[in-house]
Amino acid sequence: MNVPDRFVREALALALRSVGHTEPNPRVGCVIVCADGSRVLGSGHTQPAGQAHAEVMALRDAAARGEDVRGATAYVTLEPCAHQGRTGPCCDALVAAGIARVVASVKDPNPLVAGQGFDRLRAAGVQVEVGPGAAESRELNIGFFSRMVRRRPWVRLKVAASLDGQTALANGQSQWITGEAARADGHAWRARAGALLTGIGTVLEDNPRLDVRLASVGRQPPLVVVDSRLQTPEDAALFEIAQRPVWIYAAEAHPEAQATLEARGATVTRLPGPGQKVDLAALLQDLAARGVNELHVEAGFKLNGSLLREGLVDEFLVYLAPRLLGAGQGMVNIGPLASLAEGVPLEFTSVEPVGPDLRIVARPPGRADF
Amino acid sequence: MNVPDRFVREALALALRSVGHTEPNPRVGCVIVCADGSRVLGSGHTQPAGQAHAEVMALRDAAARGEDVRGATAYVTLEPCAHQGRTGPCCDALVAAGIARVVASVKDPNPLVAGQGFDRLRAAGVQVEVGPGAAESRELNIGFFSRMVRRRPWVRLKVAASLDGQTALANGQSQWITGEAARADGHAWRARAGALLTGIGTVLEDNPRLDVRLASVGRQPPLVVVDSRLQTPEDAALFEIAQRPVWIYAAEAHPEAQATLEARGATVTRLPGPGQKVDLAALLQDLAARGVNELHVEAGFKLNGSLLREGLVDEFLVYLAPRLLGAGQGMVNIGPLASLAEGVPLEFTSVEPVGPDLRIVARPPGRADF
Repeated sequence: MNVPDRFVREALALALRSVGHTEPNPRVGCVIVCADGSRVLGSGHTQPAGQAHAEVMALRDAAARGEDVRGATAYVTLEPCAHQGRTGPCCDALVAAGIARVVASVKDPNPLVAGQGFDRLRAAGVQVEVGPGAAESRELNIGFFSRMVRRRPWVRLKVAASLDGQTALANGQSQWITGEAARADGHAWRARAGALLTGIGTVLEDNPRLDVRLASVGRQPPLVVVDSRLQTPEDAALFEIAQRPVWIYAAEAHPEAQATLEARGATVTRLPGPGQKVDLAALLQDLAARGVNELHVEAGFKLNGSLLREGLVDEFLVYLAPRLLGAGQGMVNIGPLASLAEGVPLEFTSVEPVGPDLRIVARPPGRADF
Repeated sequence: MNVPDRFVREALALALRSVGHTEPNPRVGCVIVCADGSRVLGSGHTQPAGQAHAEVMALRDAAARGEDVRGATAYVTLEPCAHQGRTGPCCDALVAAGIARVVASVKDPNPLVAGQGFDRLRAAGVQVEVGPGAAESRELNIGFFSRMVRRRPWVRLKVAASLDGQTALANGQSQWITGEAARADGHAWRARAGALLTGIGTVLEDNPRLDVRLASVGRQPPLVVVDSRLQTPEDAALFEIAQRPVWIYAAEAHPEAQATLEARGATVTRLPGPGQKVDLAALLQDLAARGVNELHVEAGFKLNGSLLREGLVDEFLVYLAPRLLGAGQGMVNIGPLASLAEGVPLEFTSVEPVGPDLRIVARPPGRADF
């Protein structure tokens, strides 16, 4: 049996449990193992922002169990932090506890950490190994890595469509193309997002709540509305979600509408781009500045097409229902193209049945290489 | 270990090897096992039409090995035939050889057999058990069952599309949306068909050969062209396949064009339906009469839509490429629908990666229950 692999997997599994609860912090798990690798002394995962990180949780767990961690190995899925944030540096906590060895999956992309954690550990005489579980940990934190490295969120565009690619009938009807299991699965993806994004077209046509109802969640993700002319109705259902921030981005100035929407609790930001549309690239930068790691898009095919044409979509989350609808609204309004080479190339990264439907995750090739 | 299961599986595996080589006969495998179940004495599968059936092949195999099959059990995936066709009745061969027990997967749907094989075996003192491997054998012979029971072929409609459901650009370009592995896989499905079918639109636009090149095949399946006004050009590439029958179905009478096409070796049949189109339901009956079990359709979205609207499609074979094409030609020209309930309901029966693409097989619910 490969002992390190077992603890790395255990730490990754713990990290997974923090999904949806740590925004904007990364999802990290930590397992502390006695020197001879025979026994787990403590384990933990990142808590909600402002509370303890995974390493501290694992140390606390070991202490609560009455375990002595001196000389032990800490398996942690991300480089321990070296900076004083809302919590103290994890490096120092590990050193103070007498941890002899740290096995970390991957270097923290946060420029405030970026190797300094490892340096500080090594300087204190702790043996450091980096790499086991790197791909899984990075994938689990793809949004955090994106925000740190690219200064924008990882943009995941969700569509529910018929097998023949229709997301709505020509008359706009779209509820419900996919089944209950797919809708619940979709809510689980909403739950892990740092924010949800939709367009004014969807707000006016479907009047959705766009909250997380069918999955457990620590907090409702903020809702972003791309609303160039500030047409969001003040009685829109999206305002009914208690405690949920609503961030409306506009292109045009409409002081009266803005005041009305702000009175409803919305934060209104003007980011005018070409053609009196919202500057979508600037919007993503702004969301990154607000701490959004993963952005979950549920919009109509026009906004989908705009995001795609501007090269801003990192991943497609596609639910395909086993039915044919013929002439309707497609997934993205691009084209007509002059040649197949102009199409948007993707790679299927996962295909899973979800109830009677299919869930397909696809990415542009190389998109995650940043 | 479940011994019968093992031999049933072996017989089914043999049957599978006859796919593409037995048209219009069913795909059958036979394994002869000594009385105590310890040893296989002989095995075989159906040969090309007019040659030996599976049971006779297995008996010959046993004889060639010098095995005594008296008192043995024959596992066969379909009821042994009781009628004198181009070959003698298999029942009589089994009885004459002294087989004591027959385990058959399923009753032959052929009205010329339909239980008579079992009756004749029992009358000769052979013990008969029916059922093991029934679902698999029926599925393997879905086209044969369809032709025998419904008097029409099993109609499998193949489309290659982008993830967003486009089978061609608006300008008609469609080569190639999917990759090489999917094209080879598509040829394997062509190879198992009793005939391929296309429409005059595809002939005029793409000038395809529509033969089996990327898979091994015993004979090239006949090509059916739905050509209401007999517009197939006499120099069409589809005429270039040696020995391959071309069956053209027309709605209108065009004696001169007909004579030209017949001179090229085509068989021209007039089956006028409403709107000066070919009567597609009558066409399917005619193909069944010609011995077509599985009909493989590769046509444009108009003919696809016509077949679908008339309720004639039994199965969809969909290759989805990981790319987005936006506004183009969809899979089937149905709609615009007034409500989602008017869509065509399907069930995904299999989903497999094929190279970078995805192969999805889907059927209308209950479609195979005949």
